[in-house]
Amino acid sequence: MNDSQTARPKRIVILGSTGSIGRQALEVIDWHPDCFEVVGLAARGASELFREQIARRRPALAALTEPGETLDGALPDGTRLCRGPDGLVELATAPNVDLVLVATSGTAGLAPTLGALRAGRPVALANKEALIMAGHLVMRAAGESGAAVIPVDSEHSAIWQCLRGEGMDWIRRVTLTASGGAFRDFPIAELADVTPEQALRHPNWSMGPKITVDSATLMNKGLEVLEACWLFDLPLDQVGIVLHRESIIHSLVEFVDGSQKAQLAIPDMRLPIQYALGYPDRLPTPSAPLDLIAVGSLTFGEVDSRRFRCAFLALEAGRRGGSFPATLNAANEVAVELFLGGLIRFDQIAELVNAVLERHVPIRDPELCEVLSVDAWARRTCRALAPTSA
Amino acid sequence: MNDSQTARPKRIVILGSTGSIGRQALEVIDWHPDCFEVVGLAARGASELFREQIARRRPALAALTEPGETLDGALPDGTRLCRGPDGLVELATAPNVDLVLVATSGTAGLAPTLGALRAGRPVALANKEALIMAGHLVMRAAGESGAAVIPVDSEHSAIWQCLRGEGMDWIRRVTLTASGGAFRDFPIAELADVTPEQALRHPNWSMGPKITVDSATLMNKGLEVLEACWLFDLPLDQVGIVLHRESIIHSLVEFVDGSQKAQLAIPDMRLPIQYALGYPDRLPTPSAPLDLIAVGSLTFGEVDSRRFRCAFLALEAGRRGGSFPATLNAANEVAVELFLGGLIRFDQIAELVNAVLERHVPIRDPELCEVLSVDAWARRTCRALAPTSA
Repeated sequence: MNDSQTARPKRIVILGSTGSIGRQALEVIDWHPDCFEVVGLAARGASELFREQIARRRPALAALTEPGETLDGALPDGTRLCRGPDGLVELATAPNVDLVLVATSGTAGLAPTLGALRAGRPVALANKEALIMAGHLVMRAAGESGAAVIPVDSEHSAIWQCLRGEGMDWIRRVTLTASGGAFRDFPIAELADVTPEQALRHPNWSMGPKITVDSATLMNKGLEVLEACWLFDLPLDQVGIVLHRESIIHSLVEFVDGSQKAQLAIPDMRLPIQYALGYPDRLPTPSAPLDLIAVGSLTFGEVDSRRFRCAFLALEAGRRGGSFPATLNAANEVAVELFLGGLIRFDQIAELVNAVLERHVPIRDPELCEVLSVDAWARRTCRALAPTSA
Repeated sequence: MNDSQTARPKRIVILGSTGSIGRQALEVIDWHPDCFEVVGLAARGASELFREQIARRRPALAALTEPGETLDGALPDGTRLCRGPDGLVELATAPNVDLVLVATSGTAGLAPTLGALRAGRPVALANKEALIMAGHLVMRAAGESGAAVIPVDSEHSAIWQCLRGEGMDWIRRVTLTASGGAFRDFPIAELADVTPEQALRHPNWSMGPKITVDSATLMNKGLEVLEACWLFDLPLDQVGIVLHRESIIHSLVEFVDGSQKAQLAIPDMRLPIQYALGYPDRLPTPSAPLDLIAVGSLTFGEVDSRRFRCAFLALEAGRRGGSFPATLNAANEVAVELFLGGLIRFDQIAELVNAVLERHVPIRDPELCEVLSVDAWARRTCRALAPTSA
């Protein structure tokens, strides 16, 4: 797969090193200083944290994507600073890189993901947009160069772990688990009136506000189904969702013989991050082991389409294909932003996304520039359709 | 692994074709007539069922182990009958055999298992005694010839499936699941007075009487721990037991990174049997898929040492090693027989086994003949120690 068999450390570029995934990836790297070497770090702006990361790691390459941002005197000898949006692609395609962790959020992750794969660099992919908006381009680039797309998300990592040593044509079905988020037990009739504060109380995972709201609407799980279809080359009807409140089983694979395999772990993003960075090896972790007896029971339930309308909108967008998933994703991002800003109600997230999808004129096999213009159109349209003066 | 990649069917010998595992193996073979060919069948006596099997399958070889048994006119042209105890070894070591399924119960399985492995034939092992009594000899024979020992038991099959594509040195721990058998919820104080009829009501699996009683005492799980140690080359303290009432998760593996993998399926022995016969391939099955939403929840609990004394006797025998496990196994077999015959109480099974273990003078690295003589001694001693005139 890659050169993990050799003695020298794996040389890693992290795009989005100051975000949640980027910071945890650096923690994982610190657990295994002999296994990994940070050769590139990229962030949006020159925050205090980024300066610290650069000063301590002294990577060969650093990138700041916001125009005008610079590191001034904080740039160590031997670190070259790339500035502007092209900096991400420069890091992603730099020579002497063994793995590119794409942990930026938003559309900024698309070009470097495609760039890295086309240059034959394996990509550990934590950026949802790359597969949702441009899955066809990403998997085509990976297929042509032979570079691996390694999932970072706990669900996709689970599936990938369950598929180790198995034949891809033995897959009968893949099941993603969903905790159900903040409102899994909330009266459906009262969902309209929940506040952003309520939506941000995730029962199991501590994550950023956007993804936490996506967990409450279950939009995240719908998007993950679409990602799984790309990653594992499966049709939509072979990927399902099951409500699993404990977030211990991170996903399951059912094989043609009726046997299923599940991957289980405590909810700790550092585990799938480490699996992605260390792949194909498993490395020890200092994190606490899962104690099933202490957990007591694992439960499974159906996903209610009235409670979780967003998940079904995502599946429908996936069924329609082409530029529909990109449209859904962009509209959802704006709608969640409006909800978090107190400008729309919780139930209006799904309404707005649906309204934008209804107005979308699809493109069948969009190029990257078309994907980006669909994204911009969907954002504009979503804002314009918002019931308040958002 | 073996020649499953070729187009020709895998040639299979079944030792114990009229028993529960043997019959289900033939069912599996009937599901896939293009994949498997029955080239040898062996049973104890010339029962009606065995005659039917021989008439229908027309294997090249048949064996009857009971002295004096014969097939008379029921022997098809082209089938050669081997008679007496050496018949099993003859079938197990016959040329042009791709896999030997050892599904005989008792010590009769030992010699053919060793014979097949020494001759370089992969063995699908459903016989407990081979690993419990002579694990050191079996794994040595397999190691020397390079022939695989393929587990058939649902628990060991689960572990083996979870280990596909994984490094053996990444195993941190293996956990066998136990349903808890007929008396998992029975008042401990009243266990002394349960009847054989009560002990034979297994909540999840339909099996023979001996193994069902072993499930009720949890002796079976203790023995399976010892088998797992041999099969996966693990020390005793890396193999645990968890009470899992639903028998859906058939076992779990925990890796050094804290990740666990579980294999799940409906309780149907044909699935692990097929996995063993088809390995390394997975073949489709007509059996109903597992519906986790219908199952609802999977539970995990501690194994109570007062309720399940036998499991702990087995672990203790494993800790002592040498000929102790063979002693335990033989004493348990006699004790269960006495219980089923109404000659001792349920709680006396553990007492008797313990009494025999206490009297045992161990042999460190016993040869096959020593193992067999320990077995005979333990049976005699158990009968002699039985409180009634058994």
